[in-house]
Amino acid sequence: MAQAAGVSQSTVSRALRGDTRVRADTRRLIEETAERLGYRPGWAVPPSPPRSHTVGVVVSDLTNPFFPTLLTPVHDELQIMGYRVVLFAERTDLPTGQEALVNLLNRSIDGVLVTTATLDSRLGEALVGRDLPMVLLNRYVDGMDVDRVTADNHRGGRTAARHLLDLGHRDIGVIRGPANTSTSRDRHAGIVDSLAEAGVALDERFVREGPYSHQSGYQHARELLRLATPPTALVCGNDVIAFGAIDAARSLGLDVPGDVSVLGFDDVPMASWEVFQLTTVRQPLSEMARTAARLLVERIEHDGEIGAGRERLFATSLVQRATTRRAAR
Amino acid sequence: MAQAAGVSQSTVSRALRGDTRVRADTRRLIEETAERLGYRPGWAVPPSPPRSHTVGVVVSDLTNPFFPTLLTPVHDELQIMGYRVVLFAERTDLPTGQEALVNLLNRSIDGVLVTTATLDSRLGEALVGRDLPMVLLNRYVDGMDVDRVTADNHRGGRTAARHLLDLGHRDIGVIRGPANTSTSRDRHAGIVDSLAEAGVALDERFVREGPYSHQSGYQHARELLRLATPPTALVCGNDVIAFGAIDAARSLGLDVPGDVSVLGFDDVPMASWEVFQLTTVRQPLSEMARTAARLLVERIEHDGEIGAGRERLFATSLVQRATTRRAAR
Repeated sequence: MAQAAGVSQSTVSRALRGDTRVRADTRRLIEETAERLGYRPGWAVPPSPPRSHTVGVVVSDLTNPFFPTLLTPVHDELQIMGYRVVLFAERTDLPTGQEALVNLLNRSIDGVLVTTATLDSRLGEALVGRDLPMVLLNRYVDGMDVDRVTADNHRGGRTAARHLLDLGHRDIGVIRGPANTSTSRDRHAGIVDSLAEAGVALDERFVREGPYSHQSGYQHARELLRLATPPTALVCGNDVIAFGAIDAARSLGLDVPGDVSVLGFDDVPMASWEVFQLTTVRQPLSEMARTAARLLVERIEHDGEIGAGRERLFATSLVQRATTRRAAR
Repeated sequence: MAQAAGVSQSTVSRALRGDTRVRADTRRLIEETAERLGYRPGWAVPPSPPRSHTVGVVVSDLTNPFFPTLLTPVHDELQIMGYRVVLFAERTDLPTGQEALVNLLNRSIDGVLVTTATLDSRLGEALVGRDLPMVLLNRYVDGMDVDRVTADNHRGGRTAARHLLDLGHRDIGVIRGPANTSTSRDRHAGIVDSLAEAGVALDERFVREGPYSHQSGYQHARELLRLATPPTALVCGNDVIAFGAIDAARSLGLDVPGDVSVLGFDDVPMASWEVFQLTTVRQPLSEMARTAARLLVERIEHDGEIGAGRERLFATSLVQRATTRRAAR
């Protein structure tokens, strides 16, 4: 019934109870669908379960500084609104895995905020199938019609490439994040587009892909910097990859930015530490996180009044610090 | 009744129901207490509420790498045992504050794992008053008879001081954590004891106290390193303080360890990054976290069979990397 009308179960319940919070056109749609399917008001429509004021938040590896930076404002904003956070670290290396996660999420939870969705995510699908209020934060999934909050990653990728082009770099290496994430795909497309417009070819040998981790940045940067003709600059998929790249340069006795420029993405708090002074493309993580928390609570408390998946897109900006410099050649 | 017998409410319920999982001596004690107070089996003993398989975990600022390092194995271990984690970031700067936290914790939760307890903690008191299974991880509170899992911080402090003494340092600065935490108090006592045994006086001008944060390490180290006769080595309360101290040295154009040795405590993953290569006193955070999770689940599932507060003490060890060196003077 809810599926047939394209709305949530709780909206159906509310509409058929005559709850005035449901928009008139939504109620009409539900009544028509009910009639078509032979439902009558009061029939077989389970009441909405009582709210638990508990929200699931799915993150990836918490030891990656990006996730705590996102999780903290989510937690604070939800606490202010009277919701508590059940934490799920989405790990595929645990024996329990994703199915356990879905089961756990399914127990007395009002909604879920997902920061880790991949373009091929089965988690997202499973959650949508459960008709649970959901907001995607940071990443989105193509064709999944749920609320989403992201930075303008495509434009951010352009900003990164533009900065290095302006500094005279032409041999640009890219250590991107996983290809099955919207963040990595969109940032990379922005980089490619910007270079193409400038008539600069991206050497495919200079493009590496891996997880958003220090180790990926470290290993790929070491390989790239040991090529016979190495890139003069590295655009990294996020700040943590950039920290790994800086570490790799140090391990090879190379100076950043003297020998190679390094550019990150995110602007996590550590990026401004003296040892890094990382030039990076900033996304307003705290504002994004708080917005996502508010969208989710709206979705939980006023689902009937809200249309299909809402989109909030945040602008990125270049933060120039000390890891990029004019190209020597 | 539970209070009079010195056991938990659920143990009373079980004992008076004749549950065989309650140890014989415990049951006898409860029956005697019941008789003394005029209770009869079946009277006024509320049944234990159904389990929610939800556990509260209280951490401090998540953007401090120490807490994610501790939280991740706690989360994983609890998930394997079928429990989900409700996260509480204990922030005193939120309008909601500690009372909101206690209220939230009180809603359908089987137990709580606290990593932030301070020696003057009202949170701990409030929780003990609620007769909720609890484990303290990392820090403990004097006189609070609950399960606790800590490293041997006193010995760790001795190890740190001994290492610097062995390298010939006599002018040793200390940037310790908050005095109202058992970790800071015990580590500091270990340092003081070790120096005293070696006949080395700790110059009180060289001792600074502050939060376990990068900023505290940065500010205090800048002050110490700008003294007319600065210390030749800095023992830091934890790794994050040490990262701040290293940053401070860099900001003053000083070399670590050429101009000043820096020593941390914890061995968080970042300590081994190339840019830091931090010499530190390692505590086995992952093992400690998993042990705490297991103790808590035991306490939830078999409270009647377990005695008063259990203590698990983990050994620390020195991890020598590149931030300490023989004293120049």
